[in-house]
Amino acid sequence: MNSKKERTRELILKKSYELFAKNGFKQITMKDVCEATGLSRGGLYSHFAGTDQIFEAILEVLNQKDEMNFEKEMSEGRSAIDILDGALRLMEDEMLHPEDSLSLAMYEYAGTIDREMMNHFNKAGEKKWTDLIHYGMERGEFKEVDVHEMVSVILYAYQGVRMWSRIVDMTDATVREIVMHIRKQLVKEDIKHEI
Amino acid sequence: MNSKKERTRELILKKSYELFAKNGFKQITMKDVCEATGLSRGGLYSHFAGTDQIFEAILEVLNQKDEMNFEKEMSEGRSAIDILDGALRLMEDEMLHPEDSLSLAMYEYAGTIDREMMNHFNKAGEKKWTDLIHYGMERGEFKEVDVHEMVSVILYAYQGVRMWSRIVDMTDATVREIVMHIRKQLVKEDIKHEI
Repeated sequence: MNSKKERTRELILKKSYELFAKNGFKQITMKDVCEATGLSRGGLYSHFAGTDQIFEAILEVLNQKDEMNFEKEMSEGRSAIDILDGALRLMEDEMLHPEDSLSLAMYEYAGTIDREMMNHFNKAGEKKWTDLIHYGMERGEFKEVDVHEMVSVILYAYQGVRMWSRIVDMTDATVREIVMHIRKQLVKEDIKHEI
Repeated sequence: MNSKKERTRELILKKSYELFAKNGFKQITMKDVCEATGLSRGGLYSHFAGTDQIFEAILEVLNQKDEMNFEKEMSEGRSAIDILDGALRLMEDEMLHPEDSLSLAMYEYAGTIDREMMNHFNKAGEKKWTDLIHYGMERGEFKEVDVHEMVSVILYAYQGVRMWSRIVDMTDATVREIVMHIRKQLVKEDIKHEI
């Protein structure tokens, strides 16, 4: 069972996530976090020295719990198409819910502080997709594509939708099209089935 | 020849563009614009009532001078591949220069004010690309693609790169790959030539 200290930390991260998703990074102050959590100033500062530390802790948690754990699934010998379809479903779900997205906050955060952490996350995303596409090609499930090109298209089309769906009205059809485009590029025609 | 009033207005738009591209929308005040242009407060306010008005004027100018004028080129009967290649060159150039990008400013602007203007620009971009792809298919230069899907991929992969190149280190190869991906999707194999 979690200690009180751990539970408080989790509460801070949860409430801060909601604040960052809604308002971005720059606008949120430690005072906002106190109000959202009901913690005193002293209570909050005993956990985090500033909103940048809170934000980094959130990114770390997201990175660790990463629901798209291709490596584990590949080591279990799962079908590349199944792994891809699972990932595309998650991406589709995320793209349909821009209000839960940390995109704006990440954007502002990276603009104000150093780029190292964002580079780190980006590289991890690139590696994950690169490995999955190679895996699918080796198993004969994926077409022989230009791997780096496909990784770029996947990552940036996704990010483009994540960002712009906060700016403009985007239909579910657009999100679906991006997902189906990725699938069509990768999966061999003869073994394609509906996701 | 431009009147002094017009020249001052152009100076304000030019200097404000630089400020917005560098710092986003939220952070820039009318005082910053005064300092960048050398205008007095009264001088500036005789042209614009606030930074939102300046920003909207910049978007209007960009929209009007739009260098990707597909409609004119199509009405002149130009090759769809030539029109596409011209557009991709411009996009590649823009993606390689994130420092000139208004992405962050547009993002912040749209978050604070109403979405109508951004929806308007987005729809215009969608229509332009939709028309070009139909034109290319009718002329037999483009493959028979899912038009709306391709438009989504083009617009959002581009926006994703524009945004994320400000956050992470992006190689020129990535930008090139996005451009070549779009080209490969559209242009028929037998008439493909290097751009």
